[in-house]
Amino acid sequence: MSDGIVPRFEAERERLNEIVFKYAGLEIKRFYSLDTQCYRDGALPAKQKEMMGLVASLVLRCDDCIKYHIIQCHKAGYSDEELQEGLNVGLVVGGSIVIPHLRRALETWDELQQKEERRKKE
Amino acid sequence: MSDGIVPRFEAERERLNEIVFKYAGLEIKRFYSLDTQCYRDGALPAKQKEMMGLVASLVLRCDDCIKYHIIQCHKAGYSDEELQEGLNVGLVVGGSIVIPHLRRALETWDELQQKEERRKKE
Amino acid sequence: MSDGIVPRFEAERERLNEIVFKYAGLEIKRFYSLDTQCYRDGALPAKQKEMMGLVASLVLRCDDCIKYHIIQCHKAGYSDEELQEGLNVGLVVGGSIVIPHLRRALETWDELQQKEERRKKE
Amino acid sequence: MSDGIVPRFEAERERLNEIVFKYAGLEIKRFYSLDTQCYRDGALPAKQKEMMGLVASLVLRCDDCIKYHIIQCHKAGYSDEELQEGLNVGLVVGGSIVIPHLRRALETWDELQQKEERRKKE
Amino acid sequence: MSDGIVPRFEAERERLNEIVFKYAGLEIKRFYSLDTQCYRDGALPAKQKEMMGLVASLVLRCDDCIKYHIIQCHKAGYSDEELQEGLNVGLVVGGSIVIPHLRRALETWDELQQKEERRKKE
Amino acid sequence: MSDGIVPRFEAERERLNEIVFKYAGLEIKRFYSLDTQCYRDGALPAKQKEMMGLVASLVLRCDDCIKYHIIQCHKAGYSDEELQEGLNVGLVVGGSIVIPHLRRALETWDELQQKEERRKKE
Repeated sequence: MSDGIVPRFEAERERLNEIVFKYAGLEIKRFYSLDTQCYRDGALPAKQKEMMGLVASLVLRCDDCIKYHIIQCHKAGYSDEELQEGLNVGLVVGGSIVIPHLRRALETWDELQQKEERRKKE
Repeated sequence: MSDGIVPRFEAERERLNEIVFKYAGLEIKRFYSLDTQCYRDGALPAKQKEMMGLVASLVLRCDDCIKYHIIQCHKAGYSDEELQEGLNVGLVVGGSIVIPHLRRALETWDELQQKEERRKKE
Repeated sequence: MSDGIVPRFEAERERLNEIVFKYAGLEIKRFYSLDTQCYRDGALPAKQKEMMGLVASLVLRCDDCIKYHIIQCHKAGYSDEELQEGLNVGLVVGGSIVIPHLRRALETWDELQQKEERRKKE
Repeated sequence: MSDGIVPRFEAERERLNEIVFKYAGLEIKRFYSLDTQCYRDGALPAKQKEMMGLVASLVLRCDDCIKYHIIQCHKAGYSDEELQEGLNVGLVVGGSIVIPHLRRALETWDELQQKEERRKKE
Repeated sequence: MSDGIVPRFEAERERLNEIVFKYAGLEIKRFYSLDTQCYRDGALPAKQKEMMGLVASLVLRCDDCIKYHIIQCHKAGYSDEELQEGLNVGLVVGGSIVIPHLRRALETWDELQQKEERRKKE
Repeated sequence: MSDGIVPRFEAERERLNEIVFKYAGLEIKRFYSLDTQCYRDGALPAKQKEMMGLVASLVLRCDDCIKYHIIQCHKAGYSDEELQEGLNVGLVVGGSIVIPHLRRALETWDELQQKEERRKKE
């Protein structure tokens, strides 16, 4: 079932992307493609790029983008300590205006960590 | 009934504007008036100004403003192709951080287009 | 009961801050501390600083931060007239993109004022 | 001679773009290409898109981007009245924080208009 | 002579405002008027509003606006201690990205304070 | 001699920081300290944090911050390919409005790379 922040976010994102692709021309599709490519392994590893995407999303204060990169950073295997240091860079650069987004970022992270722990126990 | 994104948005907007006008002094009222006037027909047609308002709202990433201008652009008679080119300008200028707002913009547009189609069929 | 915008906001804020402090290192805690301190009485009175925080939150268009400072400005004893002048500075500096946030700011303020009136009548 | 705001801007832009292309990989080149394409004639005329680009640049307060689109809007044949209405949309949406950029936008426009007048007299 | 940051800024501002008024229609003039009015004495004193304008300009990171409000705050009679507390609110809200603007804000303030000291000694 | 973008930037930064510390109270000093600490080696290596700081500065479009992190990324030993991938993440997230800052970022990087080459040849 789609309970939890992450499954709801992913279902909504998929639903809305279908609407985007119903209307998107070649250029919007190309932008989506550039967006996907820029986080791929290259001279910099994909893992590092996801954290860069997270910090950029944090200072620009976009909850959806933050959620997306939190999920990707979790998949990429960042630890709690690494994540909180990354979030701290975003907090210092972006200021206290970032705090509400920091809260929701860690709420999502916490859900992912708790799910993982439950999985390990089973 | 007020089902759908657009009727809910318009009802909420009206409800909140009433609260604004309960407290607003002369200057806030004048600002509201300047805001209304700047989208009127003048040297530039109102239709073109609505698209400018949409792109400005998109790059500034304000969902309420985007919704408002999507509705106005729909009333002004823009086609799907014209709208997606306008949104694309906003996407390229504003970057991938705009994507979540692009999604919701097209969700609103899609609702308006589907309502119109149903009306035509009747 | 936690009905109303303000009690819901405060409960949610507390719930999420607990998650933040589960993960926060020393630096994030220090940032929180700087954030608290900067609104304290000093050369400038705390009351004036809250209004500065409100205007900063308004032009940066962060609903949570606006809500927080609206509550603080209410506690600090600002009148309706003073508040609307403060909001007007934010509106003029930040432009019409601020309007949706202005609406929600005044919705919160209105709730606080109505609660106070009811309390006085009792 | 490269006197005037516009020739200096164009020379500097060319000089720096050469440095960009010395380092740019395929993805940055593709972004540049998307950026060029989004202002081309399509369902919406190029002339209208330039004005949209100008308003977007104005509310995001980027002097270089504003200068670029002012030059393009001038080439596209907008009149003084049309331009000032376009700038006014940007001013109302973006607020008084836009004013310093509005000043420099009109300084550039004024230079272009005066050059054109001199050319017509010759 | 127009040496120093402040005289140069004021001369440039006047020069560019003349160009704005050469092109400005009624609506841009009305916006300028709203901008002037919102800092006037009212329910909140003009002095307090200037500090609010300064903090708003600081978090939005507009050097020209910051310079303008630094000059106004100086005229309004704020002390060094009050100013630095005001700037600190802007720094905490806006983050380290504000630091380059904080530097230039204090450079302007320092020039104004030194001029005043010299005047007092004469 | 202080020729070149980097030496001029560093001299100006030092000159202005002296003015900041002439006026800064304890809280501004603490903010400066948090700012320094957040880029130190920790769970995440300092090198990775500098690139995160660069991307954050790029999407927030602060030339001084970009210059600072370009210098730090150069010291940290990033290659041309790594840097351009990092800048590309910032470009895709932040959009074409980032391009003028990308140009100046690479101008600074180019100066640093050319200096290093000259040093190696000697």
